[in-house]
Parts: sequence; C-alpha cells; structure tokens
Amino acid sequence: MDEITKPRLEVCLSPALLHLFDVKNSIVVIIDVLRATSTICTALYNGAAKVIPVATVEECVSIGRQLDAITAGERDGKIAEGLLHGNSPFEYPTEFIGGKVLVLTTTNGTKLLHMAKDAVQIITGSFPNISAVCEYLISQGQNVILGCAAWKDRVNMEDTLFAGAVVSRIKEHFDVNCDSAIAAETLYHSAKGDLFSFMKKASHFHRLARYGLEEDIKYCLTEDGANILPILRNGELIKEK
Amino acid sequence: MDEITKPRLEVCLSPALLHLFDVKNSIVVIIDVLRATSTICTALYNGAAKVIPVATVEECVSIGRQLDAITAGERDGKIAEGLLHGNSPFEYPTEFIGGKVLVLTTTNGTKLLHMAKDAVQIITGSFPNISAVCEYLISQGQNVILGCAAWKDRVNMEDTLFAGAVVSRIKEHFDVNCDSAIAAETLYHSAKGDLFSFMKKASHFHRLARYGLEEDIKYCLTEDGANILPILRNGELIKEK
Repeated sequence: MDEITKPRLEVCLSPALLHLFDVKNSIVVIIDVLRATSTICTALYNGAAKVIPVATVEECVSIGRQLDAITAGERDGKIAEGLLHGNSPFEYPTEFIGGKVLVLTTTNGTKLLHMAKDAVQIITGSFPNISAVCEYLISQGQNVILGCAAWKDRVNMEDTLFAGAVVSRIKEHFDVNCDSAIAAETLYHSAKGDLFSFMKKASHFHRLARYGLEEDIKYCLTEDGANILPILRNGELIKEK
Repeated sequence: MDEITKPRLEVCLSPALLHLFDVKNSIVVIIDVLRATSTICTALYNGAAKVIPVATVEECVSIGRQLDAITAGERDGKIAEGLLHGNSPFEYPTEFIGGKVLVLTTTNGTKLLHMAKDAVQIITGSFPNISAVCEYLISQGQNVILGCAAWKDRVNMEDTLFAGAVVSRIKEHFDVNCDSAIAAETLYHSAKGDLFSFMKKASHFHRLARYGLEEDIKYCLTEDGANILPILRNGELIKEK
C-alpha cells in the first residue's frame, strides 16, 4: 500500500483526551476490557439479539421494562439496585441470552461511547473478539481511534494492553504517528507472554480479585473466545453480519 | 519502611489529566524532556542565577527587559520573534549563562507548571538531572506526581520514558498503585538499552530531527549531564542547595 494513502491509527488512552482526536473522520473502537466490552461481544456471540448500552441505572430499568429485556449493570462491583444481572461474561450463556435483548449500563465504557457518537462508525473491542476487530479495521481503510474507556478517566493497564495488541496486529496497514500507540504496543509486547501475570500489577486487578473474579479476568484476557464484531446501529450494538 | 506509611507515587501522562490527581498534597515533578526541563537544569548547572518560566513571548520580552535578563523560547521550532535565544541546552554554557537570569517561555512545560501551582513543591526533571530528582523525592517522604508536559496535551514518548525511569529508581520507597506508573516503567525497561534508537519511533523525534537537533536529543536522553535540582521558589526556578 502506498505510504501516503494509509489511514491513521491512533490510541486515545482516556476519555479525557478524546477531544484531541479527529473523531468525526474516524472509526472509534470502544475498549473496556474489564469487563463491559468483553461481556458485550460474549452476549452477542451467544445469540443476544442486541445490546443496548445506557449511561444510568434509571435508563436501564426503564428501557428494560419497555422492551421486556434483560437489565444488567454494576456499581462498585455489585449488581446495581433495580437491575437483575451483572457485568460478568459468564452470566450470558446461550441458554440464557439467546434471542434476548440486553440493556447494559456501565460507567466508563458507556461514557466514552456517547462521547464518540459523531464517529464514522463505533464498534467495541476486547480480547475475546480481537480478530474480528482487526479484520474489520483493515477491511474498512479508514482512520481508526482505539479508545480506551479507562477508569474514571485514569489510564488503565488492561485497555492500554488491548490497544497495543491491536496496533501490533494491524499497524502495517496504517500510518502510526502516535506515541500512545507506540507505547501501548511496546507495553503489549512486554506483557504478552503472560498477560494474566502482568495484569496482577494493575490497579483494576486488585479491585476485581477482591470480588473473586479471577476467572472473569482470565477470560477477558484470552483471545477470540467470542469472536464476533459488535457494531453500533441507531444506538444499539448488534452483531455485524 | 512500613507498607502503610509509604507516600504515593503516580504518573500523570498529560496536563489534560492533572485534575484527576491530588496536586495539593503532592510534590509535582514537571517533565518536558525535549527540551525545556533538560535546558533548565543545564542552565542552572552552568551557573545561571535563576530561570523564570513564563507562558508567553510578551511576558518573556517584558520581564527580560525589567531584569536585563537573557530571553529565550521557541515557537514551531524557531526562536520566537522578539526573543534572542532558543530551547537548546547547548546554547547555555557557563561562559554565557554564568550569573545571569534566564527568562524562558515554553508552551507545554510552562502550562503544566502553572496548572500545578498549588502543589506542596514543584521541581523539574529530565534525564540530565535524574539522580538529583530521585534523591530529592526519596528524601522528602511526600506523595509524588510525575507530571509529563506532553505535546499539546497528547501523551508523548520522551516524557513517559523519563517518568518510567524515575519510577524504576525510587518505587521501593513509595506506594505505586497507578497503572500509568507501571506502564511507564515497563516502557522504560523495554527502551533503556538504547533510548536514542527507541526514540526514533516517536513523533517528536522527527519534528526535532528535521531541524538538525539530533545532538540535542542525545544529550537530553543522557543521565546526569547536569545533575542539580531546579526547585520553584516564588515563581522562579533556582538550584536547590
């Protein structure tokens, strides 16, 4: 491919930095590895009709009632009051979620998704669907922003690692003039031999491990366990055909 | 040292993230490796009486006139109109700067410095004075924020690498529950064998190399060439005794 015509590939490490990027002329990949975007692709992979991401518990309850849908979301590591399910990908096997609508409220990921609403396209990414994400991004030939949901705007390890993993896979197809992308890729190469052990250094690991969620973390760091592409259409995430 | 009583060590990768940190209860290290903070410690090491950091070219001219001082600063890689000197550490040998006052305007570093004005203490850090910085931080026993000046709020490689180098040297003395700090340290360990080669991947390298500044970059990536501690007192950076 001609150097000059390659689209840009950039990494935005926190929603608080998104204004520095040209969202309107880019595909934005929403990354919330622990655990929103891992759970979204898992639910769709297991046959959910769609996933509706909402910002608040109130919206979740209200839309869930209107659509007779499954409502899910956590606050401070517990299922939020008024909702019935949590953020774990293991809560959404085919026998439970097949054919159903999932209304999901998460703080970090949903916030970023709404901030990126003017993007050319919004998709969600996580290790369980990394191959589908990379194939899609290469096929589109558009500018890409890998948007880390972070933790209350703080840069986090798991989203940065996933962004780095994507950069390492697709960079030949893009112009990568972004220090965050190069840093994320370097970090990923340092960690990839054993992502789970590396993640033990991270702040979020300890938050989740306290709740006994080590199996969730392992699943969320494993490639292609639910390898489909969630794509946003009219405010709803559906499985791209 | 008792685990519980250790002060915090955190890395803020961009001024746009500084509001997430407890600046008021921390020492803030201003990091602008290419080239403001490298030049500041070099000028002080070579005998400058003080360095006055200012935000605009106008202030620089005005204060320079009042104090009969050396005025310096660049915009877009050139000495700014109305000023006489640039950002290169090589412009400030003892025979030129000894006993003089340097009024310096830089965009990224000065902005961060003003944002951090409520900190317990502000110092500046760069590879040429890394040992002085680390010794000071260990000696103070206070919370520390390593504040990267970045590039127009974009995370950059060189400031992140320096933050990582400091983390790797002093982390035993601190509580490091900050993914940015862990990521920066990991990045530094990947790069430290040959920082200059690693920096060739970074966006700022290409901006400066276009201006023929590779020797500046090499100097700015070399440890302890001007190993003193610039500390902010009443808006002026002086050499800590």
